[in-house]
Amino acid sequence: MATIFSRIVSGEIPSYKVAEDDRFYAFLDINPRKPGHTLVVPKQETDYIFNLDPALLGDLFRFAQRVARAIESAIPCKRVGIGVLGLEVPHAHIHLIPMDTEGDMNLSRPVCKIPEQEMQRICRMIAQKFE
Amino acid sequence: MATIFSRIVSGEIPSYKVAEDDRFYAFLDINPRKPGHTLVVPKQETDYIFNLDPALLGDLFRFAQRVARAIESAIPCKRVGIGVLGLEVPHAHIHLIPMDTEGDMNLSRPVCKIPEQEMQRICRMIAQKFE
Repeated sequence: MATIFSRIVSGEIPSYKVAEDDRFYAFLDINPRKPGHTLVVPKQETDYIFNLDPALLGDLFRFAQRVARAIESAIPCKRVGIGVLGLEVPHAHIHLIPMDTEGDMNLSRPVCKIPEQEMQRICRMIAQKFE
Repeated sequence: MATIFSRIVSGEIPSYKVAEDDRFYAFLDINPRKPGHTLVVPKQETDYIFNLDPALLGDLFRFAQRVARAIESAIPCKRVGIGVLGLEVPHAHIHLIPMDTEGDMNLSRPVCKIPEQEMQRICRMIAQKFE
């Protein structure tokens, strides 16, 4: 059965897409720890990120770098942090979070409530900055 | 002035080195959140990880993948998590942490106290598994 992220990539489940190419897909986390919190996934279904082919792993982080640049341009923050945990969804994913303090990267903390319209606005802003 | 990580790389400050090549260096975090908590740094001094040249960034994560494999082989865990925050030391570094729960990746939590001899043992075990 397809993972929830594969169903998002295929469009079966709608998402706030900020960037995509033939191998990777980036979209807003619907349980954001901060406005602009984005997930980057390989389209290839692989549970554990370190099981990706090394070349694909390198390219995934290079794609994430371009997404992080877009987030920084769109969302005021000191920098964009990286988190990869992977105990919940069995499809490798990188959390990119606009940070101002260390605590912003604590993924165990409660999520922000961001209204639908604001999520759409954030999504558009990041997508427009993606190069 | 050289960053603390450059002084570790040069050997001026001793470290529990687990792996090294011409461009990257991996060593145990002396403030570990879990036994086996390792830092991976580029030898090139760059504050913000996303300011690295994209090719070097990709290679850094491919090197980290090999270090993560060694950690998994040496330290019982579900998987190795990735964290990059970077608000403290102005030299890009990747935290690799053997995880069993999400909370293991919370870098704001207190550090473990691990005796010197045990740190040396953990370091040797990981270094021996590095390929």
